[in-house]
Amino acid sequence: MEIKVLRNVLEANDAIAAENRRLLRERGVYTLNLIASPGAGKTTLLERTLDALKAEYRIAVIEGDIAGSTDAQRIGRHGVPVVQINTGGDCHLNASMVRSALESLPLEEIQLLFVENVGNLVCPAGFDIGEDAKVVILSVAEGDDKPEKYPLIFERSSAMVLNKIDLLGMVDFELDRARATARATHPDLPIFELSARKGEGLEGWLGWVREQIGRHSNS
Amino acid sequence: MEIKVLRNVLEANDAIAAENRRLLRERGVYTLNLIASPGAGKTTLLERTLDALKAEYRIAVIEGDIAGSTDAQRIGRHGVPVVQINTGGDCHLNASMVRSALESLPLEEIQLLFVENVGNLVCPAGFDIGEDAKVVILSVAEGDDKPEKYPLIFERSSAMVLNKIDLLGMVDFELDRARATARATHPDLPIFELSARKGEGLEGWLGWVREQIGRHSNS
Repeated sequence: MEIKVLRNVLEANDAIAAENRRLLRERGVYTLNLIASPGAGKTTLLERTLDALKAEYRIAVIEGDIAGSTDAQRIGRHGVPVVQINTGGDCHLNASMVRSALESLPLEEIQLLFVENVGNLVCPAGFDIGEDAKVVILSVAEGDDKPEKYPLIFERSSAMVLNKIDLLGMVDFELDRARATARATHPDLPIFELSARKGEGLEGWLGWVREQIGRHSNS
Repeated sequence: MEIKVLRNVLEANDAIAAENRRLLRERGVYTLNLIASPGAGKTTLLERTLDALKAEYRIAVIEGDIAGSTDAQRIGRHGVPVVQINTGGDCHLNASMVRSALESLPLEEIQLLFVENVGNLVCPAGFDIGEDAKVVILSVAEGDDKPEKYPLIFERSSAMVLNKIDLLGMVDFELDRARATARATHPDLPIFELSARKGEGLEGWLGWVREQIGRHSNS
């Protein structure tokens, strides 16, 4: 009984996600779903990425949080359209929440949409919201064993950002171990090591985003 | 329909949690449920706490993870009984998982039980497992805005450990803001600032644990 209902919930979500995906593709919007633990640096990475790319692309952001709108306020300062979703307790965004947010965005004018999911390394991995790709952000402060302990999100992500590398040496984190465990789950996963706070090492990540958009507009 | 089933799941969980609580109290076991984001330092805090308290109390540990047993291996090295639960995808422990684990522990011989929940600042807050108290651990690397964004766990915890204070100054974190937002959600919440990795500042936390056990055995 329980399983059946949960499966229905997932199926309903997948149907709405497919509609979101169709709508976004029709409008020529490339969408990245950013997923990470609380405090891994999603918003800071997003701020740096906006500053680097907003002259090249027309960008919008959907912010997902349990409560509050501090992230949307931070993003709003960068001069791009932003919509805040409050899940009111849910541990992830779902396709229906994202559909409502899409209605508030000028999709015709947007080429690149970032969705910052609820801070959680578990639940968001299981819910398609209609994105083109998931990106997992891991902070070195979280430890190098996370891909082993939370495999699904590393499996389902198209890229991994390893953030806060300025803290290497001050925390117990071996780069080689993190890379190896991530790639044991997801061979050939692109991994970008950077410090969003310091604004260092962003080139590889920005290049990957540009490449995805290029591929998307040619497809 | 969906809501009803979810409510049934919660009610069933609460009933088993009440049984766990009765069993643990009958055996004189004081139980703490440790909750935090991935990588906030739960296991390291636990290791330091075991080393400090294992001569005073007979302690056991239940480790909750999506997958893997690296944490149970770390804890096992400290010479206390430990049981690993793998949730296989679930974002939190539930009372039924904990009940199974209790069957593998020599409860008659234990005074203090730590349950390390799945790394997640959202889901574990909603599920009673039969503990005496929840403790939330926040790392300064996660940012000072977390109590605002994830209020439930701060509301429901009996104490907060602010970990990795050795990283203050290297991350954007204002102690005053973190304290204020936590206490806006939960007035008078005891907050212990420490570095589990460096083994610094543990006295307040250890004193609080001792005090809880003392109260518990007198009640």
